[in-house]
Amino acid sequence: MANSRYEYVRKFESDDTLLPGCWLVVRLDGKAFSKFSQDHAFSKPVDLRGINLMNSCAEAVMREFGDIVLSYGHSDEFSFVFAKDAQVFKRRAQKICTTISSLFAAHYVFQWYKYFPDMEMRYPPSFDARAVLYPADNILRDYLSWRQVDCHINNLYNTAFWTLVHRGGCTPDEASKELDGTLSDYKNELLFTRFNINYNDLPAVFRKGSILVKKVVEETIERTPGVFVQKRKRGFVVLYEDLIRDPFWADHPEILGE
Amino acid sequence: MANSRYEYVRKFESDDTLLPGCWLVVRLDGKAFSKFSQDHAFSKPVDLRGINLMNSCAEAVMREFGDIVLSYGHSDEFSFVFAKDAQVFKRRAQKICTTISSLFAAHYVFQWYKYFPDMEMRYPPSFDARAVLYPADNILRDYLSWRQVDCHINNLYNTAFWTLVHRGGCTPDEASKELDGTLSDYKNELLFTRFNINYNDLPAVFRKGSILVKKVVEETIERTPGVFVQKRKRGFVVLYEDLIRDPFWADHPEILGE
Amino acid sequence: MANSRYEYVRKFESDDTLLPGCWLVVRLDGKAFSKFSQDHAFSKPVDLRGINLMNSCAEAVMREFGDIVLSYGHSDEFSFVFAKDAQVFKRRAQKICTTISSLFAAHYVFQWYKYFPDMEMRYPPSFDARAVLYPADNILRDYLSWRQVDCHINNLYNTAFWTLVHRGGCTPDEASKELDGTLSDYKNELLFTRFNINYNDLPAVFRKGSILVKKVVEETIERTPGVFVQKRKRGFVVLYEDLIRDPFWADHPEILGE
Amino acid sequence: MANSRYEYVRKFESDDTLLPGCWLVVRLDGKAFSKFSQDHAFSKPVDLRGINLMNSCAEAVMREFGDIVLSYGHSDEFSFVFAKDAQVFKRRAQKICTTISSLFAAHYVFQWYKYFPDMEMRYPPSFDARAVLYPADNILRDYLSWRQVDCHINNLYNTAFWTLVHRGGCTPDEASKELDGTLSDYKNELLFTRFNINYNDLPAVFRKGSILVKKVVEETIERTPGVFVQKRKRGFVVLYEDLIRDPFWADHPEILGE
Ligand SMILES: Nc1nc2c(ncn2[C@H]2C[C@H](O)[C@@H](COP(=O)(O)OP(=O)(O)OP(=O)(O)O)O2)c(=O)[nH]1
Ligand SMILES: Nc1nc2c(ncn2[C@H]2C[C@H](O)[C@@H](COP(=O)(O)OP(=O)(O)OP(=O)(O)O)O2)c(=O)[nH]1
Ligand SMILES: Nc1nc2c(ncn2[C@H]2C[C@H](O)[C@@H](COP(=O)(O)OP(=O)(O)OP(=O)(O)O)O2)c(=O)[nH]1
Ligand SMILES: Nc1nc2c(ncn2[C@H]2C[C@H](O)[C@@H](COP(=O)(O)OP(=O)(O)OP(=O)(O)O)O2)c(=O)[nH]1
Ligand SMILES: O=P(O)(O)OP(=O)(O)OP(=O)(O)O
Ligand SMILES: O=P(O)(O)OP(=O)(O)OP(=O)(O)O
Ligand SMILES: O=P(O)(O)OP(=O)(O)OP(=O)(O)O
Ligand SMILES: O=P(O)(O)OP(=O)(O)OP(=O)(O)O
Ligand SMILES: [Mg+2]
Ligand SMILES: [Mg+2]
Ligand SMILES: [Mg+2]
Ligand SMILES: [Mg+2]
Ligand SMILES: [Mg+2]
Ligand SMILES: [Mg+2]
Ligand SMILES: [Mg+2]
Ligand SMILES: [Mg+2]
Ligand SMILES: [Mg+2]
Ligand SMILES: [Mg+2]
Ligand SMILES: [Mg+2]
Ligand SMILES: [Mg+2]
Repeated sequence: MANSRYEYVRKFESDDTLLPGCWLVVRLDGKAFSKFSQDHAFSKPVDLRGINLMNSCAEAVMREFGDIVLSYGHSDEFSFVFAKDAQVFKRRAQKICTTISSLFAAHYVFQWYKYFPDMEMRYPPSFDARAVLYPADNILRDYLSWRQVDCHINNLYNTAFWTLVHRGGCTPDEASKELDGTLSDYKNELLFTRFNINYNDLPAVFRKGSILVKKVVEETIERTPGVFVQKRKRGFVVLYEDLIRDPFWADHPEILGE
Repeated sequence: MANSRYEYVRKFESDDTLLPGCWLVVRLDGKAFSKFSQDHAFSKPVDLRGINLMNSCAEAVMREFGDIVLSYGHSDEFSFVFAKDAQVFKRRAQKICTTISSLFAAHYVFQWYKYFPDMEMRYPPSFDARAVLYPADNILRDYLSWRQVDCHINNLYNTAFWTLVHRGGCTPDEASKELDGTLSDYKNELLFTRFNINYNDLPAVFRKGSILVKKVVEETIERTPGVFVQKRKRGFVVLYEDLIRDPFWADHPEILGE
Repeated sequence: MANSRYEYVRKFESDDTLLPGCWLVVRLDGKAFSKFSQDHAFSKPVDLRGINLMNSCAEAVMREFGDIVLSYGHSDEFSFVFAKDAQVFKRRAQKICTTISSLFAAHYVFQWYKYFPDMEMRYPPSFDARAVLYPADNILRDYLSWRQVDCHINNLYNTAFWTLVHRGGCTPDEASKELDGTLSDYKNELLFTRFNINYNDLPAVFRKGSILVKKVVEETIERTPGVFVQKRKRGFVVLYEDLIRDPFWADHPEILGE
Repeated sequence: MANSRYEYVRKFESDDTLLPGCWLVVRLDGKAFSKFSQDHAFSKPVDLRGINLMNSCAEAVMREFGDIVLSYGHSDEFSFVFAKDAQVFKRRAQKICTTISSLFAAHYVFQWYKYFPDMEMRYPPSFDARAVLYPADNILRDYLSWRQVDCHINNLYNTAFWTLVHRGGCTPDEASKELDGTLSDYKNELLFTRFNINYNDLPAVFRKGSILVKKVVEETIERTPGVFVQKRKRGFVVLYEDLIRDPFWADHPEILGE
């Protein structure tokens, strides 16, 4: 039987090819993670298990999509940066975004118990994803800076908030009244003077978020018993660094390439 | 610290709002399921466990998105039909597609062992998804007919193919040589005369695919011991019917509505 | 010399094919016609010469694009309705809109002196144009109603305004103070009681705008001297009618077709 | 009367905002100019009157749109290059393209008799226009090179063709047989050996097309009788130069800016 009589309906599919020659960023973000993190008793302000799970899902995405040059994540979000000339799925926006969001979500469930061995997953999460184009290197850097500033602002606020609640005896309401509308300096000061916390001494993973890049790494392998050899291999590394200022980019010139 | 210096990068996000007043279909399809089904030893031609898992994921999507009026799936694909006036995510294409594809994939992993208790999931699957608009009822019906014809063509072919291999002693190469370029009649005839299989007697779930709709169903509940009451409740039903011809639509007038 | 080295730049052109199966409306509107009409001393509130020129340009567009089923215009705007299945320029939005806007503008200049024989054109006008899709007949009718209501509102206001200025001795400031925020009834009443003008007796072309349709018209032709024959021919007719209510559509069933 | 009942139809208009941060090129091209040029007896291979008219229309577009940094035209086409950060019409594609195409077409008719004083315009022309984004300077240069190579290829062919017809006694058929599939060298050689024409000595306006840029030009003005002053003023200049190689861009660094 020929399928041709109905095949005309394919004409209603639209072309969403993305402009070539631009950095292509796919940013995904967990749906309703305020609730999901609460329903699964995530530590506050940040749950390191959750972060490590997110990073592991991101690495799986990078293994699948070879032309991702850098990923950056914090909280319930991750941004994947594709090379300017990436031809992934012929740059079809929906195809790229849906494959990534579903692969990420599937890994989130698949790897859950590795990171949360004692916590039953009550229901599976979902993630939205969007493709955004950035035509120039400096704009791409501004994009990543935007996300890292967001990480900083939220983390400082959440740290101050939960410190007030957990250690300062505040109710959540009181804590938010204390903090709302205040500047960073105020929160830093408050953490330091009232709780003797130097915010900058907190783990960088919380303050900076996670940067995943591909790197040639040296590994020492025991080839035969007692015989150790150095092997170079492409792997993924996670960095918890400032990517807003120039040093990061000077240290990793291969990311932006030529 | 103000985030405003970098916030201009949001201007690079584009608007992909879908035209109102049209049926909105999201079709998702498993990535590389030829390999996935093989790596997980799916029965051939069709694995009922796989179908039931797909249907269960689709039902989860329908529970999350209240304005899906019908879903249709077979093989590694599912189509979700949103009401013409659905305002889901303000009709933003990527937001809709990525949330659905990730929710579906997450459920696929989450529910895997319920349907494949004896088969370890070796790696998680992913799904692409696309949004397509159909401006009129008859075109929507043609779309669904297109998918059901596809189900029929593939299932008849696969049934004949694997019967030749499993019961006819053919190698896969011989089977495909035998079948390629032949019409439906030929395959029906072959199944009947050589293997005494009446194709139309095979389970409808294989031949027709799965149609999920919401229905008000009557349930008998034992309210207190010995006291049984009828309760009406909205639930999901799976139908394995012909949706190409008119009777299906006459039987379910609420799907297309006014 | 081969052009191939540079030809890759074509890849940056994007596809803007419009969804099939929908009414396709192209609405154009004069740029800065407040100034243009003033610089060319258009009569107030409406200049019939300007309207007739607009209508003649629209007819030229309809002659060029055979699948326009109806056009509607008033003031400095015109809407062209293409049949649902129109394949004009393969439904490429920019191609359609730019060809129409340029053809319309070129005719506006070309035919200017036919309608404004005594008024030098000081500079040429320009027009924007946009393509909009309407998936159903009733929505298309609502679109056209929207434009005709706009015509009515503006014309009633402008009529009242200029009557107050020209015959009521008001300054423009006084006239707008008198009218702003008032309802239709008030303006009708004002025209009637103070100036003895029954708004509904004003020419329909002002109150209703211009509807252009293709019609088979009978013409009496003198074939040879003294011998008159009836000939049927497709031509364009301009109607100044209410298209909001049903009778118009009952009288012209061929416009919406099946 | 409120217009609100119908105003919902505006929701069907779609957003076609163009990505920021990219060179925005609008290329327009005459519709059916093979016929238009024939119907108006354009000289062959090129009519200088036609070119000058095109250039004058392009200048009018540049006067209207202040952020065009360069325009390039030949034959029946013109490309307008907007600055990367141009905010013209908020970068709405259709609005930009339709306004430009209509303004260009209107000027074409408006200025016709200035350039073709002896030739009646038989009907007005129309132009399509499209917006294309180029994310980097080198790609923009490749775009312009693509158009200038096109100018060169066509002009060399047409020059050889019409020389064969006008001076070589060929019929058009014979001329095209002679030329089809030949390389540039062959045509150069043919012009030189058979007709003593050194192609490179032909006017640059034919060989290179027309580049319009804004320049600060010095003018000598007679302020009061006998008193001459130098005045600097921004004006438009037309250049007939090679823009493929670097010298042009070195000479005009302000075009690409920083
Ligand atoms: N306690 C805790 N909460 C977290 C952690 N990571 C993320 N969250 C929560 C904090 C925020 O409420 C939420 C992320 O913010 P979003 O703006 O993405 O909101 P949400 O996902 O609820 O809504 P959305 O669907 O994205 O609009 O997830 C964590 O490690 N620990
Ligand atoms: N044995 C077996 N195979 C199945 C079953 N359901 C789906 N498959 C396989 C048959 C097809 O090879 C494949 C679905 O066809 P597709 O055209 O979607 O191909 P595939 O997913 O490999 O590639 P894609 O990434 O979608 O382009 O999945 C099943 O129940 N049993
Ligand atoms: N006196 C007079 N004015 C007219 C006539 N037809 C149109 N106009 C004027 C009245 C309005 O000010 C203007 C049309 O309104 P629009 O909203 O299109 O404004 P305009 O074209 O100035 O700006 P735009 O570039 O479209 O945003 O044209 C006419 O026949 N007589
Ligand atoms: N004789 C003569 N012909 C010219 C001149 N400038 C342009 N033309 C003609 C030569 C080409 O046939 C035509 C331009 O080529 P196009 O590829 O744009 O074709 P055309 O406009 O006919 O079709 P289109 O509607 O653009 O697809 O215009 C001129 O100065 N003299
Ligand atoms: O999700 P938010 O609240 O951070 O803000 P947004 O991502 O811009 O909103 P949306 O997800 O609706 O695009
Ligand atoms: O995936 P296929 O092979 O059924 O065909 P398609 O879905 O039209 O192709 P694509 O997934 O690339 O859109
Ligand atoms: O032009 P207006 O003021 O009638 O309103 P609009 O057409 O919606 O605005 P725009 O021309 O900018 O799309
Ligand atoms: O118009 P042509 O033939 O030069 O080629 P094109 O411009 O790519 O074709 P279209 O005008 O249809 O986009
Ligand atoms: Mg969001
Ligand atoms: Mg979230
Ligand atoms: Mg978030
Ligand atoms: Mg596919
Ligand atoms: Mg598949
Ligand atoms: Mg499939
Ligand atoms: Mg407007
Ligand atoms: Mg206007
Ligand atoms: Mg107007
Ligand atoms: Mg063309
Ligand atoms: Mg042309
Ligand atoms: Mg051309």
